[in-house]
Amino acid sequence: MITHPSFTVEPWCLRETELNLEVLAQSESVFALSNGHIGWRGNLDEGEPHGLPGAYLNGVYERHPLPYAEAGYGYPESGQTMINVTDGKVIRLLVDDHPCDLRYGRLLAHERVLDFRSGVLSRTARWISPGGRTVRISSQRLVSFTQRAVAAIVYEVEPVDGPTTVAVQSELVANEQLPRVEGDPRVAAATESPLSAEEYFAQDTRLRLVHRTDRSGLRVGAAADHLIEGPESTRWTAQCEPDVSRLTVTADLAPGQPLRLVKFVAYGWSGERSLPAVHDQVDGAVAAAVSTGWDGLVAAQREYLDRFWAGADVEVEGDAEIQQAVRFALFHVLQAAARGENRAIPAKGLTGTGYDGHCFWDTESYVLPVLTFTAPETVASALRWRHGTLPAARERARQLGLSGALFPWRTIDGAECSAYWPAGTAAFHINADIAMAAVRYVMMTGDEEFERREGLELLVDTARLWRSLGHHDAEGVFHIDGVTGPDEYSAIARDNLYTNLMARQNLLAAAASAMRHRDRAGELGVDDEEAATWRDAAARMALPYNEALGVHEQSAGFTHLQRWDFEATPPENYPLMLHYPYFDLYRKQVIKQADLVLAMLECPFAFTDEEKARNFAYYEALTVRDSSLSACCQAVLATETGHLRLAYAYLGEAALMDLDDLEHNTRDGLHIASLAGTWIALVSGFGGLRRHLGDEGRQDLLGFAPRLPEALSRLVFTVAVRGRRLTVDVGRTEARYRLLDGEPLAVLHYGEPLTVTAEEPAVRSLPPVPVRPEPQQPHGRRPPGRPGTEEAQTEPQE
Amino acid sequence: MITHPSFTVEPWCLRETELNLEVLAQSESVFALSNGHIGWRGNLDEGEPHGLPGAYLNGVYERHPLPYAEAGYGYPESGQTMINVTDGKVIRLLVDDHPCDLRYGRLLAHERVLDFRSGVLSRTARWISPGGRTVRISSQRLVSFTQRAVAAIVYEVEPVDGPTTVAVQSELVANEQLPRVEGDPRVAAATESPLSAEEYFAQDTRLRLVHRTDRSGLRVGAAADHLIEGPESTRWTAQCEPDVSRLTVTADLAPGQPLRLVKFVAYGWSGERSLPAVHDQVDGAVAAAVSTGWDGLVAAQREYLDRFWAGADVEVEGDAEIQQAVRFALFHVLQAAARGENRAIPAKGLTGTGYDGHCFWDTESYVLPVLTFTAPETVASALRWRHGTLPAARERARQLGLSGALFPWRTIDGAECSAYWPAGTAAFHINADIAMAAVRYVMMTGDEEFERREGLELLVDTARLWRSLGHHDAEGVFHIDGVTGPDEYSAIARDNLYTNLMARQNLLAAAASAMRHRDRAGELGVDDEEAATWRDAAARMALPYNEALGVHEQSAGFTHLQRWDFEATPPENYPLMLHYPYFDLYRKQVIKQADLVLAMLECPFAFTDEEKARNFAYYEALTVRDSSLSACCQAVLATETGHLRLAYAYLGEAALMDLDDLEHNTRDGLHIASLAGTWIALVSGFGGLRRHLGDEGRQDLLGFAPRLPEALSRLVFTVAVRGRRLTVDVGRTEARYRLLDGEPLAVLHYGEPLTVTAEEPAVRSLPPVPVRPEPQQPHGRRPPGRPGTEEAQTEPQE
Repeated sequence: MITHPSFTVEPWCLRETELNLEVLAQSESVFALSNGHIGWRGNLDEGEPHGLPGAYLNGVYERHPLPYAEAGYGYPESGQTMINVTDGKVIRLLVDDHPCDLRYGRLLAHERVLDFRSGVLSRTARWISPGGRTVRISSQRLVSFTQRAVAAIVYEVEPVDGPTTVAVQSELVANEQLPRVEGDPRVAAATESPLSAEEYFAQDTRLRLVHRTDRSGLRVGAAADHLIEGPESTRWTAQCEPDVSRLTVTADLAPGQPLRLVKFVAYGWSGERSLPAVHDQVDGAVAAAVSTGWDGLVAAQREYLDRFWAGADVEVEGDAEIQQAVRFALFHVLQAAARGENRAIPAKGLTGTGYDGHCFWDTESYVLPVLTFTAPETVASALRWRHGTLPAARERARQLGLSGALFPWRTIDGAECSAYWPAGTAAFHINADIAMAAVRYVMMTGDEEFERREGLELLVDTARLWRSLGHHDAEGVFHIDGVTGPDEYSAIARDNLYTNLMARQNLLAAAASAMRHRDRAGELGVDDEEAATWRDAAARMALPYNEALGVHEQSAGFTHLQRWDFEATPPENYPLMLHYPYFDLYRKQVIKQADLVLAMLECPFAFTDEEKARNFAYYEALTVRDSSLSACCQAVLATETGHLRLAYAYLGEAALMDLDDLEHNTRDGLHIASLAGTWIALVSGFGGLRRHLGDEGRQDLLGFAPRLPEALSRLVFTVAVRGRRLTVDVGRTEARYRLLDGEPLAVLHYGEPLTVTAEEPAVRSLPPVPVRPEPQQPHGRRPPGRPGTEEAQTEPQE
Repeated sequence: MITHPSFTVEPWCLRETELNLEVLAQSESVFALSNGHIGWRGNLDEGEPHGLPGAYLNGVYERHPLPYAEAGYGYPESGQTMINVTDGKVIRLLVDDHPCDLRYGRLLAHERVLDFRSGVLSRTARWISPGGRTVRISSQRLVSFTQRAVAAIVYEVEPVDGPTTVAVQSELVANEQLPRVEGDPRVAAATESPLSAEEYFAQDTRLRLVHRTDRSGLRVGAAADHLIEGPESTRWTAQCEPDVSRLTVTADLAPGQPLRLVKFVAYGWSGERSLPAVHDQVDGAVAAAVSTGWDGLVAAQREYLDRFWAGADVEVEGDAEIQQAVRFALFHVLQAAARGENRAIPAKGLTGTGYDGHCFWDTESYVLPVLTFTAPETVASALRWRHGTLPAARERARQLGLSGALFPWRTIDGAECSAYWPAGTAAFHINADIAMAAVRYVMMTGDEEFERREGLELLVDTARLWRSLGHHDAEGVFHIDGVTGPDEYSAIARDNLYTNLMARQNLLAAAASAMRHRDRAGELGVDDEEAATWRDAAARMALPYNEALGVHEQSAGFTHLQRWDFEATPPENYPLMLHYPYFDLYRKQVIKQADLVLAMLECPFAFTDEEKARNFAYYEALTVRDSSLSACCQAVLATETGHLRLAYAYLGEAALMDLDDLEHNTRDGLHIASLAGTWIALVSGFGGLRRHLGDEGRQDLLGFAPRLPEALSRLVFTVAVRGRRLTVDVGRTEARYRLLDGEPLAVLHYGEPLTVTAEEPAVRSLPPVPVRPEPQQPHGRRPPGRPGTEEAQTEPQE
């Protein structure tokens, strides 16, 4: 049985009305606050009990050696792990000497609400201390979108049933004791007590700690200031030690008399700047926050989010759970990216330590597509970070004997720290994923300056990589051998179709961009001959196809491998990688996650409609979805090939990954890419959004092919396109297109050109859905239907 | 420049006439003594200076955890490392208070001789102590072939130029301090001080130490006793501590007056037996040795070796260096195996810690073929060890979802301890290598009891493995996907030809053996249906072939991969795996070591002569010989396809691997398989020895197709065949076959049947050698010719 917190279904917030300590860690992930720079897990204010205490700063990590029983040339030697930085959210409470720890005493009432429109996490509790005193506790917490270095908390305590002496200890804590980590002792060594104190300070209501990491040499500063409101008896004192700086506030409270503390926290870090510089930086940021005040921070937060939702909201009629889930998803995707400012967007955002805080390809392939249409300025920032890592990527390519740049499979600072090569080093597709994310951003925003300054260079270096990685055979066909595609149950294959198609787009886009910016291309050493070799390789790219079956091959020879024996695989043996050896998964037809299906989403014009339908059916029967990156892609292609009920089921799986903890690891942080997948399933799926490539990838049009599953009566979404906002309102029989602002925009409706204006909506009817036989999933892997649909009754998930 | 000890060229011994401390570790390997149970490196008697002190017992190891940065299902978790056990060879010498350490004072003369006929290592030295006194030191050392637990030393010291007080300290030392090991600290932890003292004893001239390993829980006992001969002034005393038991003998010696010590050492170990049992065992063995006496041990050693050489010697006329090398090789191969008695034959024998003391597939594929024809009783013992590991191999197969038994890629005790899967877990061919070693042994000896008791079970379990590992495609062809063949520059390939051919032989041999022993097969659960599925899979085995090129493919699609850019690879970048990433080696046409060429040696009848010639030429151009396992196979196929000068060059490379330290790692121990390769290059190469499969692998004939390279005038070798000894005497124009004993034997001479008797030699002339264009090696990888041949002048090795 799956145990998870239970939340009420509401359109604009996530509300928890009971505290279940067994799944505390999961709730800490879903209630995490972040602005992309600072991340605070949704830990209880008092610090304990906790699942995993967590305060993170994007880019702050420690190094550790990567172990190999048998090493090899080019194996990365140094790993990176995001560390828990100075925790500024801890506010401990003593009620008549009893520490407020909800494991003791009795919790009469508990509620936490994460409001997607205000960006504030609110909490109320009513607790009887072991000494018998009842108190009301409330807090509100935000990590500011507008003041990047700042987070703030309002904490209030009030006795209910008699006079009470309370002590509130507001802290900055470094090197918090963490739950024991299993696994490599050297990784544990890097993450336990990762910070060495450089400065500690406490005076009046002001606190400060500055620390440094030992191996990565990063300086981390945190400062806090407080406003205190309480009765006359209220006193306070501040103390500090190397790892703790603490303000203690005491007061004698009568029933109904509150003690209120507003805590402003500021963070700063640098690998370069001096101790005084970091010290001044955090003191300055906290002073600015005090000057803005709590109400000012809350108002600015609301304003920031109002602007976001006006251009990004998705309305779903007919499924309140999905409605809530898509807003939850968009809120967290925004939180992961909003103020990253030239730092990575990690796979878990800043919500937990899963995947060591690393950034992977799913940022470019799942998260950035959503942000390109909803918060495009964050995409430029994330891609500038990648651009900034080009020196490391060029060095990695050189080390492996390749040209151009080879981006890391997983990293924090830009250096490869994936130790495991079959699915790591060889997963070259990440390079095209990055390049095409840049192309997508430029196409959809028209940001020419970005293209000249960063985009072209990303394209050129990745094109050079592909050109050196592949080779022409005797017949002139261009092959890319020995690579791993998105599907992690296949590895080191020849001509992975997804990789080859993406590389083809990459090569063509590089040549086209170099033509548009000949001077800049010249600076990068690109001449017409080089661009011609890119076009030539693209034109002759191998695209494996099995004529007998009439389907494309995920990689050369894939359809000839032995089929996995799904019938003999019991449900408890999923995910397969925990129960079967990789060598066996690699050599059989079994697919962890969308690979060729993702190719049909990313490169839709490489396939005819009938090929898509046959491919989808073939690969659907092999795909076990042991990755959270799969369901949303399957939802899109299921929609396109006419399987709307199936698409709707996959939407549910993508949307509820974290809210229902479907993979049992939400405790380690949210699946940001799967959350993005909720939007993808709705907008690219039921909205049918695709980018239609024009002349050499340049003037591409946005196209839509909307169709709704039975259960949904309406879907409304807004996307940003070249500075305008386009709203698509899909009903059961027609779609209405209108611009919220700006000049008229040409789009396609089911391939038919259409000009949308701000004046009046363009309305188009929806063509009938093609009828095709229902595709089959591997035995026992059919997704459960959404509640209320037919499948929900007949096929419970095993 | 290669630095290595220089040895005189003599037919029956290896003589060193200078001591070069820089290459001391290499000399310790070549002068190592072993009987397959005990191994003593050729360390100087005084213990220091040393390259690597080493005393080993076959099967004594310590465990250590295997590290993974990213773990996976089925990855072995525990490694094994052979440890340095109690050292019984240390005899320290003090000359008037100056310790005899050859780094100090002056060494006037030094000689060490390893005599292949006596099996004794002799040493003489003349040394001036830092105090100015000249002494003559001599020692003789043996590890007994006849008394398996026993080794012995005669040590003699004598002043030359004036009266001297000497002290001789004869020791048993546990936990010797070793040179610092680079790499995983956990492996170092397992090998530094691996022994915990259980008992220490010293009384009169008797010493004893019993220790235990911490994690593997093995009890190791060593005992010594001494005979002392010296002047009246001679006194002795014995002392002990937990890790040292020591006899100190002092004497005042006049010039020319010797002090002589005979030291008898006995070893025993057990994972099961009690302390008193091991204690008694080593005391008993040492008492027996004392009773035999030094002269008795030497006489028995000589007798044992006389018998061996009478049935195993190879005479080479025309190349004195090769003559010495082949006897050196046979002597060390015998040492590695002679008294292993149901233990493994490690890749380095017991001559050093290279490869952690592990046993690999080269035991069955390189070492056992030689022993089958020269010392067949050792083969039965080595295969009984494999048979004894069947429970572990079955468990491993079960763990990986396969039937039958899956033998480990590298092991000491039978459990898989290869951490690195592409060339480890997936190198399934080892299972056929083991099975076919058993078949070869049974065929060549007629040992029916072995076949019934162990051979059949090895065949059945490996046949079951192949049947479950492979699958039939839609056309009924049987494929084995996702495996790694012998060539470690390719991995995880489909239908590796060597693997498939060996698996085919394995399946057919299992079916045939089950038919011969129906009752025993029934006990193993084999019925006619199961045997039929083996025959069916064998009959439809995929054997990839490129029709356009007219060559077989090393694995499916191999000939379509990009060719390695050998022209752009500088000589200093070999071996490639130290300078290029494996992923790149894997995806290109570049071969580390004989793979398809080995298949043509092991399964000669799967190829026509013309196919062999085309295949050899094609793969020769891709093979860089970064493995010591390659040259001998290339020598054999070069001979068969008519390239005798090339074959002769490869013979030199195989034969001098350790004597000339060609791979710069002889310090870690000898390359036992490459030593065996010397015999293979001569006997299977220039002798053309092949086993010709008869009816279902049963009645196979031995065939010969002798031909000599220009430089050699004569080659004489003797092989054991079904209890008889057959001598083949190859000249430039004819070959003479005769039996030394036993009933007439049918053999083939160039495919033509011939009956050989003990009465008179059968003489046959040699057909002309086919003339074919000289095959090309990769740029810069042509082997240097033997001295005196044309190539030696024109093409020095880069």
